[in-house]
Formats: sequence, structure tokens, C-alpha cells
Amino acid sequence: MNNLIASLVELLDPSTVLTGADISEKYHADWSGADPCQPLALLKPKTTQQLSEIMALCHQHDQPVVIQGGLTGLAGGATPQSGEIAISLERMNGIEELDATAMTVTALAGTPLQVLQDAAEDRELFLPLDLGARGSCNIGGNLATNAGGTEVIRYGMTRSMVLGLEAVLADGTVINAINKMVKNNSGYDLKHLFIGSEGTLGIVTRVVLQLQPKSRSSHTALCALNSYESVTKLLVELKRSLGSGLTGFELMWDSYYNKVLEVLPSLTSPFQENHTYYLLLEYKDNNQTLGAERFESALFEQLESGLIDDALIAQSHQDADKFWQIRDGIGELFQVLGPVSNQDVSLPLEQIGPFADDLDQRLKAKYNNIGVLLFGHIGDNNLHVCAYTGRDEDKARINEDIMLMISEYAGAITAEHGIGVLKRDFLALSRTPSEIALMKTLKMAMDPKGILNPKRVI
Amino acid sequence: MNNLIASLVELLDPSTVLTGADISEKYHADWSGADPCQPLALLKPKTTQQLSEIMALCHQHDQPVVIQGGLTGLAGGATPQSGEIAISLERMNGIEELDATAMTVTALAGTPLQVLQDAAEDRELFLPLDLGARGSCNIGGNLATNAGGTEVIRYGMTRSMVLGLEAVLADGTVINAINKMVKNNSGYDLKHLFIGSEGTLGIVTRVVLQLQPKSRSSHTALCALNSYESVTKLLVELKRSLGSGLTGFELMWDSYYNKVLEVLPSLTSPFQENHTYYLLLEYKDNNQTLGAERFESALFEQLESGLIDDALIAQSHQDADKFWQIRDGIGELFQVLGPVSNQDVSLPLEQIGPFADDLDQRLKAKYNNIGVLLFGHIGDNNLHVCAYTGRDEDKARINEDIMLMISEYAGAITAEHGIGVLKRDFLALSRTPSEIALMKTLKMAMDPKGILNPKRVI
Repeated sequence: MNNLIASLVELLDPSTVLTGADISEKYHADWSGADPCQPLALLKPKTTQQLSEIMALCHQHDQPVVIQGGLTGLAGGATPQSGEIAISLERMNGIEELDATAMTVTALAGTPLQVLQDAAEDRELFLPLDLGARGSCNIGGNLATNAGGTEVIRYGMTRSMVLGLEAVLADGTVINAINKMVKNNSGYDLKHLFIGSEGTLGIVTRVVLQLQPKSRSSHTALCALNSYESVTKLLVELKRSLGSGLTGFELMWDSYYNKVLEVLPSLTSPFQENHTYYLLLEYKDNNQTLGAERFESALFEQLESGLIDDALIAQSHQDADKFWQIRDGIGELFQVLGPVSNQDVSLPLEQIGPFADDLDQRLKAKYNNIGVLLFGHIGDNNLHVCAYTGRDEDKARINEDIMLMISEYAGAITAEHGIGVLKRDFLALSRTPSEIALMKTLKMAMDPKGILNPKRVI
Repeated sequence: MNNLIASLVELLDPSTVLTGADISEKYHADWSGADPCQPLALLKPKTTQQLSEIMALCHQHDQPVVIQGGLTGLAGGATPQSGEIAISLERMNGIEELDATAMTVTALAGTPLQVLQDAAEDRELFLPLDLGARGSCNIGGNLATNAGGTEVIRYGMTRSMVLGLEAVLADGTVINAINKMVKNNSGYDLKHLFIGSEGTLGIVTRVVLQLQPKSRSSHTALCALNSYESVTKLLVELKRSLGSGLTGFELMWDSYYNKVLEVLPSLTSPFQENHTYYLLLEYKDNNQTLGAERFESALFEQLESGLIDDALIAQSHQDADKFWQIRDGIGELFQVLGPVSNQDVSLPLEQIGPFADDLDQRLKAKYNNIGVLLFGHIGDNNLHVCAYTGRDEDKARINEDIMLMISEYAGAITAEHGIGVLKRDFLALSRTPSEIALMKTLKMAMDPKGILNPKRVI
């Protein structure tokens, strides 16, 4: 080890290699709640070339490394494990090019997501990737975890907006797969190896993203519905009438909706009566007047058809914000609910309603005084489950119960947060043995010494 | 060999194993023009299980195989090479499920594209993948080659509509990565290994595709412009005003436009004057009246701004068909031009115009009496180049000249047709040595004996 650290100090400038107490606690853990751990050393390369040389040395010394971006991951992938050197990409930061004609942006991996969003906005463009951690997370980490967030229903996950990237392999090889072209079938599309593989197959160092024109108008409504079947039928109808403009379809079960209103007295339900499902809709258009007309007429049609029981269209930004505060109230609920089993899962569309009912029943039969709150991006198959008993010792058991039920319903044990270390033991609940064997084949081929984010994912 | 054929006959029913003259010439070559070759045997498995057993046997005997779908590929990937057994997936044919609520279709790999298109249409849905060979090509081949076609500007390549798949590896292992969920970050997304890798890493046997609601109205216009800069500026403006509804942006250089009108006397230019660029636009909407208004006002705005010199909006299907006949006239040109170097390439958006001018000049300086026709899906970076001298011996030289120029301009040597055998020697013009080395690492890991579509791509 001392040999390696000495070689690294020799290779890099001393400010780039930190050890012991010089490593701030920030680098001991990500946001997932996985147990913190001080890395053997913390390296902060400034260039792809430096990172390549670091990896060549670590490879030579069989030294495991953990890759860190904004440390906002929720699966424990960036929390150091015992004996690992941490490599932070935070200094590899900056936008290299924004091409307003091709609508692309090229940036280094350590660039915060919000910096990219703002740069796009300045040119009347739009990066269709957004999540709560936008100010802290880095675009490299967004690629490594194939981040989801809002607007997936329209624009897809992070993967779908990546045109090209550069990555460093476990042995230091630099893969330059930078590309600004939509159509390119010249050999294997290697970027997909690095997107969503959580840093286990290579380190993303540079990205090219497809931007979109900024929408000129946004329209929001809160609807009430009384059956899950109405929800799925409404999704189909609105996809037909609103087309690609439908950018938000956020379902809240009454349990969640009522709990938020109970805990946040500043919010009140805009509806007179109680309903079983509450749905937040967002529609974007390039024309304010035509957009408002189209949105109103689509909703009116579905009030007439009976799929929607009641609906309120936001008449101002303030109205829209109030609707979103109910949906986003989960953040404040976490402050008061005590220990929560918080799961981010996916299910086939028609299974989400039956799964939710079944889960609610089974958990209530098994645990005393359990609260079960449900909401999700249903248009993307994504359900969020929060279950809490007030007892810390129940959390792991509830997590496992949910994972097992997801397997029964042929769902995905993680929709957007990833596997990391926290769900590694459950992977076989969502994937077949031959799939997992193929993942291991890839890992072995690309990182035969297993030094890159080891024990994450597989 | 005889041992293997005997084992295959024993394994499969005899109608599934053809040899010698029983193999119709259809299976000797694909549509690419690569030299035909009779395979050692032709196998027509009916199930994934049979295909898996075939591959296990071939793997055991180190027997190379070529995978055949609809045989419509243009890169020679499905044309047998000497000593290969051909495996046709044509009997693994049929739709297993069409889920009109989730808007997904699940089908076997040997299902013709048009069958899927029609099934979607019957449910008022739309499969956003279309190409000239729709009646003959199979969906498995579309995935293997990551087919492009029209509407890529809106919906992306085939890859972007694949939710899940099943594939058989070189050793017969079945990878079941069937999935109907938009969000699924549960481990590596293995499907991307098989999409666009032209059958060299595995055989796609079953697919799940995301469908879209069928648009209710379609609007077409033919525009005239006088500079390439106006073309790219117009693309930006129309993306802003028409949003996701812009589904066609087909540019024709005057050389191409005039040649089509010269060769096809049934067509006449709807414009009084000559222009440098002709642009076919298509816009789709979910509302006929609003859609027509929006399209007309967007075009009027750009006539006013001066980006468009002249524009004609189709007033009927007949008008729209006439505009498309000019764009699709290339099919008939091929009948009369003699030997043509026909290249499908991609370039960064702003480079397409300068590249086209430079290519035209250089080819005309080098070859006597050369004709150079240019057109393409510019919104997807895709340029089609047709160059002809009437002399067969020039074709290969012209191909090579174009490939070398693409490399100079940092473009892609193939946009949508793929590498196959025909462009294999040129791959290094578009990809770096470390990328090609990584492709070989993947190939070696997944097909160590090199029996699956050998000598294609890499």
C-alpha cells in the first residue's frame, strides 16, 4: 500500500492525494444511509489523463477503488468499503461546448446537473433530466446510475439523452466514444456498457447530451379518480389527446394524500369530497393559448366520459405550486414518520393497482400499527412505497417483504435508484440466473481483477 | 461435419434441417449485393429451446453459423460465408401479446415488421419504425441492426423503442431479458449488447416494443431554401414551434431533386424557380384543425423571417404523395444510373453542408463525368450519397474516397445500414483503436470460439 500511495503522490500533485484526517467526512459516505467508512486515500484527478494513470497504477497493484461524483446516490454505491481508495471526479468539472444548433451539450463528468440545466436554459433550451439532488449530483453519476426523475414519461431515463461519452476502464484504458450524431451504427454502441452499470465497468469522464427546445407553456391540473382502472384508461386517453406534451402523470393513493395534508397544515385539499386516487397532471406545449385550450378540452372530455371524478386546472403558478407541494410533501413526511422502509420499484402498468392493494393488506396483517403510503410516476411504471411502524427493527424486514412481493409480481426491485450495495443481495429476485451470469461475464472481461466499485450491483 | 449434421437431424425434425440443393437460393445472400454462398446446412428452428440446443451443439463442434431474418440487410451480415451453417428464424414468427393499455407488443424475432405495424394500427396504435423493406424484414433483424428509417427525428432508432428481449448466446444459453417496464435499473441493461451488434454477440429471439398512440392528423409541405445555414436554422425554429410533432425533415440537394424530375417525367416541380435546397417537412398532431393551424403558422413565420424562400403545403393526400414521390424517387433512379456508390453516412449537423460541397468538388475533380446526388434525414445527421460514373470499376474507389472523407470530417461511416462484411475494413475510420479493442473484448467474452456471425462488424 505505501508503495502505491507513494507512487500516486509522485504521479499527481500533492493536493490531489489526501490521506487520513485530511479526508473530509463528506467522502466517507453517500446519501444512501449505508455505513460510512474512511477510504485509504482520496484522489481528485483533474484530467482524464490523470485518472487513466491512476487506474493503471491501481490495476498494477490490485487496488480496489470507489468512484465518487456528487455522493447523492441512494443505493450505497459511492460509499467506500474497507480498503478502498476513493476517486472523486469533482475537479473534472465544466461545460466544454454547448451547440445550440445541434442542441447538444458536452461536459466533464464532475459537472453538477444544475449547471447543465442552467446553461441550457440560457440558450432557450432544456435538459430533460431533473431530480431533487440537482444542485449536488454530477452528470457522470447521473449516467452511471441511469438517473430517472421527472419527465421520464416524455423523454425517458438519462440513457435516452446520451449521444456519446468518454470513459476510463479498470486498467486505465481511455474509451473515447464521444459522438454528437443521432444515427451512428458504426460498430457496437459501447456507451450503454457504462450507463446504468454504476461505475462497475468503467468510469464516465465526459458526456454529450441531447438537449430539447424549451417549452413555451406549462399546464397543471389535479384530478380525483375512484378506481385504478380509471387511472390506466385515463393514461391511454391523455396520451392519445395530448401526445408527447404529457410530461407529468403523478398518482397519489388517498393514504399518501391524506397523510401529507394531516402533517402539513399549510396545505388543504382543493376537493370537497374524499376520493381514492389523486392525480397530478402536467402538459407542456410550445404555444400558450393553443396549449391551454388543448389541455382544458382533453380534461373536459374525460370528466364527461366519467374517467375523472373531479378536476382542478391551475390558473396560476401559485396554484400549480400548491398542487406540487402535495406531491413533494414526502420530503417533509420523512422528518416526522420515524424509521421508514422507502422503496422505489417498478411494475407492469396493470399490476400496479392490484399490487398496491395486496401490499397494503399483507403489511397491515403482519405488522401492528403500520402506515403504508403509496405514490408514483405511474406512466413510467414507477411506484414509491413508504411503510413505517415507528420501530427501527421492522425496517429491514419490511424491505425484504416488499422485495419478495415485487418478485411475485414480476416487477423490478429498483426503478431508478439502482442496486449499489443495498439491494445487491436481492438482485436475483428481479433477474434470472443466466442474466446474472452474463453480468459477471462482462465484469470479468472488463475488470478481471475486480478493482472497480467492487461488490456493487453483482 | 457429418457428425454434427447427423446430430442436428436427430435433434430437430427433418424438415428443420436442409442441405445441398434443398436449400433455396434465397438463403445464399441478403439484399446487400455481397457474393452469394451456399451454406453447409440451413436450419429453421421453431422455438427458442430448439435454437438453444442447436447453438449448444454448434458450440461443442466449433461450427460457425450465420443468422438470417428477412435477409433484407444492406451490409452483407446475413450472407453466408464459406463453411457456415445458416440459421433462419423465419418460423419463430408471431405476436404473443399486444397490450393496448401499456402500449406494448411482444413478438417472436421472425415476425415481419409490417405485421407488427398492422397489429398496432388495428388498435389505433403506432409502431414508430418504418423502412422500405417493411414487408420482408423481420423485427429480430431490425433489432440486430438497430434499424433507422423514417421518424427517427421524433422517436429515435429501433433501440429507443425496445423495452425488453430474449436472446440466445453462442453456447446456447438463453438470456431472458423480457421486460415491459419503462424504468428498470435492476442491474446491467443487457439488451443493449444485442441491439445493433448485428448478431455477433447473441441471437435475438423475442422482443417487447413500446408503441405510441396513433396520430390523428398528418401535415406535409415542400419548401425551397437557398443556403445550408438556413436549413439548420429552420430545423431549430421548427423544433421550437412544432415540438415533438416534427416527424420528417428530409433535405434534397438540387442535384438530386433535378435528376429525379429529369428521370421521372410524371413528376414536375411545383416551384416556378430553381433553388439550391428542397426540404420535405412532415408534422403530426392529435387534432386535425389545431394541427393544420399550427403547421401553417409555423411555416408562415419562417417565410416572413426569410429562412424559407418558398413553401407549398399539401392540401390533400395526393399532394403529399407527390412530394414524397420526389423524395422516394431514388428507388427508380437506381434502375437507370448504372453502377452507383451508394453510401449511408452521418455527420455532425453543421458539417453536413460543407462536407457535401467539398465531396462534390473533390469527386468531380477526380472522376470524369461523375454524377453526385445528395439527400438525407438531416435532422438525424444522416446523409445519403449516390455517386456514379457509369463505370463499374470506379465504384469501389469512390466508396473508399467517401469513407476517407467521412473520417476527415469525424463522421460515422454508416448511419443506419451497419458494418456487416462490406464496411468491416473501414471500421477504424470511425472508431478509435481502444474502442475496437473493447469490441473485441466483448466478442471474446461472449463468443470465445467466434462461431456467431464471424467476420461481421469486427
